[in-house]
Amino acid sequence: MACMDADAQQALARLIRTVRIAMLGTLRNGAPNVSMVAYLCAPDFASFWLRLSRLAWHTQDMALDARISLAICETDDGRADPQTLARVTLRGEAAQIPAEGPEFERLKRAWLARFPESAVTFELADFSFWCIAPRDARFVAGLGRTFNLSAADLAAAAAHRG
Amino acid sequence: MACMDADAQQALARLIRTVRIAMLGTLRNGAPNVSMVAYLCAPDFASFWLRLSRLAWHTQDMALDARISLAICETDDGRADPQTLARVTLRGEAAQIPAEGPEFERLKRAWLARFPESAVTFELADFSFWCIAPRDARFVAGLGRTFNLSAADLAAAAAHRG
Repeated sequence: MACMDADAQQALARLIRTVRIAMLGTLRNGAPNVSMVAYLCAPDFASFWLRLSRLAWHTQDMALDARISLAICETDDGRADPQTLARVTLRGEAAQIPAEGPEFERLKRAWLARFPESAVTFELADFSFWCIAPRDARFVAGLGRTFNLSAADLAAAAAHRG
Repeated sequence: MACMDADAQQALARLIRTVRIAMLGTLRNGAPNVSMVAYLCAPDFASFWLRLSRLAWHTQDMALDARISLAICETDDGRADPQTLARVTLRGEAAQIPAEGPEFERLKRAWLARFPESAVTFELADFSFWCIAPRDARFVAGLGRTFNLSAADLAAAAAHRG
């Protein structure tokens, strides 16, 4: 498995910073379950935040088993071959974040800047932030260009403007 | 949980027939793993076909544990609130299809009509079709409009032109 060159790093940074929705894989009764989530990421790609209702299946799943997979896929632009769309899958554990303190306030501001329509979720008691710190990742930059990445590789990609 | 009305059925049929890529959840060492796949579906939504290389992680995963989740999400059009994007998650088991016989030939023609760029995969020995017969599904038609569906509900939606 080759190391990412600067082009691949830049493509990964652009993918993660451009796309707004990800597909979250959780364990439900021992089987995989995939659902859509909106996400926000730290500038260094060390943290990915989700804002979820505890009434949602994926939130119930993560409360029982924190292991998750988060896939971010380039928006389909109708190109001839969809297999050339770039995508990255992060793997790690999800942890709920307390709804108080300066970290929460910073996160709330950043979330509302990106998703202003979600203001109502800050008035509902069943919503909270969850944080995913990726342990590793798999980046498919296009057909036949696949990279297995460590958290350090993600950080190196994050140094690119994207 | 309400039953789908005709509008929701139509929206589901349109979603499944319009989108080309799905996110496949498999089990990898007991944890969820999500990856992108192209898909083709039967007119009655009773079968969803994927064309996969046995070298890919998801294919190796399904050979060990057939349980999967397949999520199809409306393409992000940049709307104010991405949480209103429609998406459906199918759950079931995946089975590999033998590369011979009239069913394979019909499927090959349909696949090439939808994904002409994938012709090369029919010259490579490591690619094969996999079939998913959804056991149930969960359809989020938009914020707060969620439906739990049986295979019969999927078939009812498929009767709509979409």
